[in-house]
Amino acid sequence: MKNTFGNNISLTIFGESHGNAIGTVIDGLAPGIPVDESKIASLLSLRRPAGKISTSRREEDKFIIESGVFDGYTTGTPVCILIPNENTQSKDYSATRALARPSHADYSAYEKYHGFEDYRGGGHFSGRITAALVAAGGILIPALEAKGIFIGTRIKSIADVCDRDFADVTEDIKIVSEKSFPVFSAEIEDEMQKKILEAAQEGDSVGGVLETAVIGLPRGLGEPWFDTLEGMISHAVFSVPAVKGIEFGSGFGIAEMRGSQANDTMRMENGRVTTQSNSNGGIVGGISNGAPLLFRCAVKPTPSIFKEQETVDFIKGENATLSLIGRHDPCIVHRAAVVVRSVVALALADQLATRYGTNWLSGGAKK
Amino acid sequence: MKNTFGNNISLTIFGESHGNAIGTVIDGLAPGIPVDESKIASLLSLRRPAGKISTSRREEDKFIIESGVFDGYTTGTPVCILIPNENTQSKDYSATRALARPSHADYSAYEKYHGFEDYRGGGHFSGRITAALVAAGGILIPALEAKGIFIGTRIKSIADVCDRDFADVTEDIKIVSEKSFPVFSAEIEDEMQKKILEAAQEGDSVGGVLETAVIGLPRGLGEPWFDTLEGMISHAVFSVPAVKGIEFGSGFGIAEMRGSQANDTMRMENGRVTTQSNSNGGIVGGISNGAPLLFRCAVKPTPSIFKEQETVDFIKGENATLSLIGRHDPCIVHRAAVVVRSVVALALADQLATRYGTNWLSGGAKK
Amino acid sequence: MKNTFGNNISLTIFGESHGNAIGTVIDGLAPGIPVDESKIASLLSLRRPAGKISTSRREEDKFIIESGVFDGYTTGTPVCILIPNENTQSKDYSATRALARPSHADYSAYEKYHGFEDYRGGGHFSGRITAALVAAGGILIPALEAKGIFIGTRIKSIADVCDRDFADVTEDIKIVSEKSFPVFSAEIEDEMQKKILEAAQEGDSVGGVLETAVIGLPRGLGEPWFDTLEGMISHAVFSVPAVKGIEFGSGFGIAEMRGSQANDTMRMENGRVTTQSNSNGGIVGGISNGAPLLFRCAVKPTPSIFKEQETVDFIKGENATLSLIGRHDPCIVHRAAVVVRSVVALALADQLATRYGTNWLSGGAKK
Amino acid sequence: MKNTFGNNISLTIFGESHGNAIGTVIDGLAPGIPVDESKIASLLSLRRPAGKISTSRREEDKFIIESGVFDGYTTGTPVCILIPNENTQSKDYSATRALARPSHADYSAYEKYHGFEDYRGGGHFSGRITAALVAAGGILIPALEAKGIFIGTRIKSIADVCDRDFADVTEDIKIVSEKSFPVFSAEIEDEMQKKILEAAQEGDSVGGVLETAVIGLPRGLGEPWFDTLEGMISHAVFSVPAVKGIEFGSGFGIAEMRGSQANDTMRMENGRVTTQSNSNGGIVGGISNGAPLLFRCAVKPTPSIFKEQETVDFIKGENATLSLIGRHDPCIVHRAAVVVRSVVALALADQLATRYGTNWLSGGAKK
Repeated sequence: MKNTFGNNISLTIFGESHGNAIGTVIDGLAPGIPVDESKIASLLSLRRPAGKISTSRREEDKFIIESGVFDGYTTGTPVCILIPNENTQSKDYSATRALARPSHADYSAYEKYHGFEDYRGGGHFSGRITAALVAAGGILIPALEAKGIFIGTRIKSIADVCDRDFADVTEDIKIVSEKSFPVFSAEIEDEMQKKILEAAQEGDSVGGVLETAVIGLPRGLGEPWFDTLEGMISHAVFSVPAVKGIEFGSGFGIAEMRGSQANDTMRMENGRVTTQSNSNGGIVGGISNGAPLLFRCAVKPTPSIFKEQETVDFIKGENATLSLIGRHDPCIVHRAAVVVRSVVALALADQLATRYGTNWLSGGAKK
Repeated sequence: MKNTFGNNISLTIFGESHGNAIGTVIDGLAPGIPVDESKIASLLSLRRPAGKISTSRREEDKFIIESGVFDGYTTGTPVCILIPNENTQSKDYSATRALARPSHADYSAYEKYHGFEDYRGGGHFSGRITAALVAAGGILIPALEAKGIFIGTRIKSIADVCDRDFADVTEDIKIVSEKSFPVFSAEIEDEMQKKILEAAQEGDSVGGVLETAVIGLPRGLGEPWFDTLEGMISHAVFSVPAVKGIEFGSGFGIAEMRGSQANDTMRMENGRVTTQSNSNGGIVGGISNGAPLLFRCAVKPTPSIFKEQETVDFIKGENATLSLIGRHDPCIVHRAAVVVRSVVALALADQLATRYGTNWLSGGAKK
Repeated sequence: MKNTFGNNISLTIFGESHGNAIGTVIDGLAPGIPVDESKIASLLSLRRPAGKISTSRREEDKFIIESGVFDGYTTGTPVCILIPNENTQSKDYSATRALARPSHADYSAYEKYHGFEDYRGGGHFSGRITAALVAAGGILIPALEAKGIFIGTRIKSIADVCDRDFADVTEDIKIVSEKSFPVFSAEIEDEMQKKILEAAQEGDSVGGVLETAVIGLPRGLGEPWFDTLEGMISHAVFSVPAVKGIEFGSGFGIAEMRGSQANDTMRMENGRVTTQSNSNGGIVGGISNGAPLLFRCAVKPTPSIFKEQETVDFIKGENATLSLIGRHDPCIVHRAAVVVRSVVALALADQLATRYGTNWLSGGAKK
Repeated sequence: MKNTFGNNISLTIFGESHGNAIGTVIDGLAPGIPVDESKIASLLSLRRPAGKISTSRREEDKFIIESGVFDGYTTGTPVCILIPNENTQSKDYSATRALARPSHADYSAYEKYHGFEDYRGGGHFSGRITAALVAAGGILIPALEAKGIFIGTRIKSIADVCDRDFADVTEDIKIVSEKSFPVFSAEIEDEMQKKILEAAQEGDSVGGVLETAVIGLPRGLGEPWFDTLEGMISHAVFSVPAVKGIEFGSGFGIAEMRGSQANDTMRMENGRVTTQSNSNGGIVGGISNGAPLLFRCAVKPTPSIFKEQETVDFIKGENATLSLIGRHDPCIVHRAAVVVRSVVALALADQLATRYGTNWLSGGAKK
């Protein structure tokens, strides 16, 4: 289904960086979900570049709900959200059309679309398209929260600076994930931003690791084969540009453990089955077990750097050198956090709608 | 779609460990793909337990092609492969029905299926079901090889023992991946198996990391959003039981790199665009770029250990202790390698069929 | 998805007339649906040829539930049902491999599968494959009945003999649809069978019209666009071989009505909205409105006739004449009735599972 | 997938009659399909009300291509087309919110969406939404024509006035289907329009039958089970509001034929297999056989009539009478023709993309 994700709640994104508009259509939403435009705007602001550490392309991400919402509630029919492109400087890009930016999609897109792709500003591959995902998140995230399901994402590390582990994941995630730079302390924020600025001053960029926790997910969600929770979430999360790895619970660390260490032993607590540890990240056999769903994803350093790079002109078939100009983020890790939350909201909402039916996510009966 | 994967080539698996049979239906295969039962048997033998390091449950994985193959070629209609269960000892399991084996799906399955699940020997969650995936791989892997696409998987590490890096991935992967214990040297094999046996003697288990390389994949495969190559492959690979993480190219390591290190610079070589490094694992913007597709996945230590464990009886709602008896592998990493190859073959064959059409995978015209 | 139907409850069929076995995998069934093998057998017997009016190929349709059922209930994992082929006489068919039987799929299959198709006895196009659909119906139909949803199909006409209209559709359909020749009176049965035998004696065949009613369907089921109830049902019903038309409510007759005649006026009855007529067949805007869902489908005369026919040898590319021998039904209308019921059960069960969630069809909690 | 149709080329529609905009997203289009806005406009004009026989709601159907088209060609990424709503008179509708218009979706929508539906002007059920389908048709229909596949739809009958049968379907369909009132002669047009005006003067409405022919479809297209050509086309066509029946080839007429009459005998002609008749409408076994694909669909009389009707207030739960005011078509048969063509183009383009691959529909290489 290409640019669409989800079976019962499905989302399609469209748009190019320098086209008329980008946007999304979400189908399968229950009727009666409250839609608060200020909440959408507030999530979009978390994705927006800000401060010295971000690109100078600053758009307000004005969005228009074209359909599917009436009197402040979803109608149950497809919701189209449009985000018009405003601040486009197309001339920045046209000169370098066939000079492949290393680790950007320029060349692989050319192989796929045979030259018909809109190459301006990354076209359909632009990180800007993620604004549409976040706009959808602006409906899905509050709807899940109303059902007691909280999805938060925080920066675990940027470059070689690591934030502390969760102490109490349930409490910690709620505190940290509403920040525009979601780390626990001002010290860590300073240290990380210093790394970003250092790289920027050298015309370079840095990456990092995001950690996501989902609190309150019902038990018994997910499928044993193929549509495992890990499978569905990773399928969605690899759509966040620059993500190159994902691990659940102890992740790659589990490979060096013994079974006796890795196994999450179980106890009854307040009448419910609970695990004493969470090496499995809340998912066993592809299915949620009641522990917090926990995963990390690796975000690569922004490929747009200002240092001169060796590359090719893929139309001429010649070697070339490339010195980028224009507006680019030296780090996108913090901006990607709310995108990750949004796609996880989509993947989980879809699973929940499958399990509990089309109307489950609704806020309830019409007044 | 739950137990089904793929849009144009789609595979469904069915069966329980102690039911009549397990099996698979593969739909969407081109007509005219040669089907060699000895090749299927040979791949199945890579998955089969062997030697001291494996369970004593030894079944021959006799399989029956029930449909979709005629005169040695696929017909283009659904292929059903059945693997009858033979060596089932149901009494091993019934006594411990509600004693959740930690990090096994017993409890999460109970939450999902409300007690109707076939709990005998792990039921539908049993690693045995993967034999059906490998049987399908026995058709898909040779068909892709006939098109010049080679998929190999090797053991990168078991416990804390690491095999060497690839020297020349294109050559190395072909040598190593046909082995039943796919490492480069007899020394590493010994060292790893020693770790497995040590754990086994202590009633414990170990995990490891598998590395997969795909050589010869056409450029331009994959989608920019959602059905990215990373997304489709990870979706499939998390169906391999015990996988808890996946990373492409430099994976989590990329998070600490600068952009200038991580970017794969490009040069013309023999008239084709090539990358000088492969931090992106052959995928940029979700789309193949001609470099070898490369990923690693983390396999957790077998949760079935003989050490006494704390757990619960989830029907009585009481704490309990569990001492497993029966037949269990102290390590499944090596057996999982061919399962990973099989699901990657499925994910790629589906993408290729989407791009090049239904008949692309065929061996050619009928004589 | 080719040989698969349904999003949340999905069914795949496989098999060839003269292969090892035919069968089906049904995925997405709720755990806890009672499975009564005698009910499956009883529905299969409605499809089986009987008496003078049917083919002499008589197989018992012995079926084996390979997976997904445990202790008499569905487990919630995929149910595979296998029906081994027994009474196959392959030599009947091989001689006429490239002589296209007019209005059979021989030639169109050759264009699709390029000669790799299993041509014996119609292969994957054989009406025999429908036994797998009926076996699935043997689980779905009783499960829906347990939820108060009754699906019945009756013969409206064979050749030019018409049965009477429904008097009280709710009562009538229950009486008539369990018969192996589902008409209201013995007189009509005689008259229709006479037409069938007349045609048979002349080496010819007849067709007819089947009418299906669904009683007790919840209101509000179906989608406004694309997955309309009419769209989903017709998609499924055109899989019943030989169906060439479908009409809901007044169907083609509505085209000559005025709006004032065709509109189903509404009244409150016993506190519920009801329609005074049912020109729309219980579906308005693609969505059920509480009236009985009602449709008719046209079944073409069996294309296998014994009269000599003009045709081609599509491999030699030459004109030819064809005189069929072998075992063929002079009429399949009555045998198709239970197949229609089965695919309608599938289409509706899928919609219901979408609306009410995965577990809705279950019989309830485990004892 | 609800409001989405198609696997490899998939189309989602969104919008409400009196919301901001209606529109569509088409995903999976090959890169390099020429997009001619004047062609889109010209097809939209066929759908637009005109003359005395149509509603006085006259909107220009101005459309905006928001994405997926660059320099006059599709890019291969999703195409979003937006059609802003302009001429909305919401006050016409609010007073009758719970007075169910008989044979309209008001009541069934209420049962589905629990009162959250946008009820103004039919909301998401409005015939206006079909403009989005036609806009998509404006890309797909010319693209198929460039591949030699012509889809035409003509009025077979309105009320009891029938146009003549096709003489030479291949020629006839091309002549007739570009007309805004697609019948063969001015006499028939007059006669049909007289019937429409008569009904209109009495505050009533009429229906009719549309006949569609597809010329030049490749042989071997379609699937034997479920995704039969008949199944896919009917699935799509029942999305055209007011369609209540569909029949292929001889359709319901075939039910009264003998096999010897109904069978399409075959001959070699100009080196190709051809049929001497076309009772099967170009589809045998679900698969195209080279004959023109031919079907008819029944369109019900517009349910919006001005005569007083018995109905209910479904919120109060009371009987009521309804006298519609506002702007309504006394007949939509002629306007529906281009909608049918558009959805057939979608269903066939999807099948073709599946068979021949993602890029097949492209106009060719980039200059």
